[in-house]
Amino acid sequence: MGSVADTLEQRTVTLEGAQRVVEAALTLARRMKVTISVAVGGLAGDLKAFARMDGASTLSAETARRKVQTVAMVGMATHEFGASLRSEMAVEPELFEGMLGIEGIVAFAGGVPISVRGEMVGAVGVSGASSQQDREIAEAAAAQIR
Amino acid sequence: MGSVADTLEQRTVTLEGAQRVVEAALTLARRMKVTISVAVGGLAGDLKAFARMDGASTLSAETARRKVQTVAMVGMATHEFGASLRSEMAVEPELFEGMLGIEGIVAFAGGVPISVRGEMVGAVGVSGASSQQDREIAEAAAAQIR
Amino acid sequence: MGSVADTLEQRTVTLEGAQRVVEAALTLARRMKVTISVAVGGLAGDLKAFARMDGASTLSAETARRKVQTVAMVGMATHEFGASLRSEMAVEPELFEGMLGIEGIVAFAGGVPISVRGEMVGAVGVSGASSQQDREIAEAAAAQIR
Amino acid sequence: MGSVADTLEQRTVTLEGAQRVVEAALTLARRMKVTISVAVGGLAGDLKAFARMDGASTLSAETARRKVQTVAMVGMATHEFGASLRSEMAVEPELFEGMLGIEGIVAFAGGVPISVRGEMVGAVGVSGASSQQDREIAEAAAAQIR
Repeated sequence: MGSVADTLEQRTVTLEGAQRVVEAALTLARRMKVTISVAVGGLAGDLKAFARMDGASTLSAETARRKVQTVAMVGMATHEFGASLRSEMAVEPELFEGMLGIEGIVAFAGGVPISVRGEMVGAVGVSGASSQQDREIAEAAAAQIR
Repeated sequence: MGSVADTLEQRTVTLEGAQRVVEAALTLARRMKVTISVAVGGLAGDLKAFARMDGASTLSAETARRKVQTVAMVGMATHEFGASLRSEMAVEPELFEGMLGIEGIVAFAGGVPISVRGEMVGAVGVSGASSQQDREIAEAAAAQIR
Repeated sequence: MGSVADTLEQRTVTLEGAQRVVEAALTLARRMKVTISVAVGGLAGDLKAFARMDGASTLSAETARRKVQTVAMVGMATHEFGASLRSEMAVEPELFEGMLGIEGIVAFAGGVPISVRGEMVGAVGVSGASSQQDREIAEAAAAQIR
Repeated sequence: MGSVADTLEQRTVTLEGAQRVVEAALTLARRMKVTISVAVGGLAGDLKAFARMDGASTLSAETARRKVQTVAMVGMATHEFGASLRSEMAVEPELFEGMLGIEGIVAFAGGVPISVRGEMVGAVGVSGASSQQDREIAEAAAAQIR
């Protein structure tokens, strides 16, 4: 017979935490004078909170969500995933193409895990500025939770 | 050559307005002791702000978004759209099926327009409680903007 | 600054537990002389273990997975979800159609939550026999974990 | 009228065989201290058995399945398919892109045929470690059937 021993304990970010991450991203984007979309998901990439600034494209909304999904699927930041694909690209170009062919996967900067005590509890995705700015905003916003 | 005379002026809800609608929905849902997802979109159904309460299902998240999309596509509340479909169902069952077969269309209560001076500027979709409660919350939240 | 207070604790079934659920379903199906597919997912519907008996259709494989996904999305057994839709159908036929139009959602018997101490930790989906048999097998298999 | 002469005999791996392949992959992965997903399909790439180790990403689950599908579609190991694409890439870059653009096709190591007496009867796909480790595990696991 089964029991708690058949389960793994996981933590996932609350709505309150997710909304704080969204607000931190919006505040920083305004200071940097860029217009972005920001999405925050729980451990499984399930959307918790979202905001799209006035003037940010609907593509940025979709991309922010995909960054959240990708972080949840691969367990690392999207720029790290991109770097690992690129390092394999020299020896295996097919891997690079193959991974990017999976619906919803993006491998450029702007999606980062939200972690508490070294354990991933969710993900934030930012899109709309340059991908380096997207990453900077996402990292600063994710740091609201730790 | 074109001119302003060739254009229509449209108004769409701002992020700030959309976030106020989201907060109003969350506050009312907590008071009613129900757990919901709430999505707010601009005039085109383009997502502006979103929140999913802790414990609300991921189906409610998807449904809230679809209610926003439907309101934007049909220009009326989802319960009104449902009623109009039902009244046509007796004479034209194909229409009922055909409309509901369109990807993303939902025709039950919980999606309402956000209007300013009688003009639609966006939509709010609520899901997770009974569809009557979803509608009550959506209508109260939409009334934040006028 | 955030903290563990910004997170919810969740439990999800282990691979070992998931494989025990699969084996229980296969054993019962053989005893009932039916051929089935059985899928077990974690809390978010993420596939953990799967088996398709010799002779079971590939449709049963896809359906078993969708039952897992549906249980994860709605937080209840698929037959309960179906019953709740049906009870609303008299007053709101659009709701029934609308929910079933969401990709991957199925609302017939055979998908049940896996729970430990009343808390959902995953889902099992069975398909290939009659939907009542699918449900009976899924419930017995899910009872391996508690 | 048709007859046996109008048919080809095919062999496909049983569920029992598929489960043995899965267990062999899991055992080897644990010994190598890597976390993987492993999928086993029949001759047509139809999923028979699957397991995702605790801690393996959901991307690895999807990738393992795609490796099975690719082996079934091309009739060779994914690393051989990758090598053949690469050798054609110099003369026909469109072929490389075109093949990888087909939904579900992956051309990097980790998917291998399961064969009996030189005849393919199924496929195993492993993902989650380096692609060379994925391949090593898949080959050892496939050798369970012969």
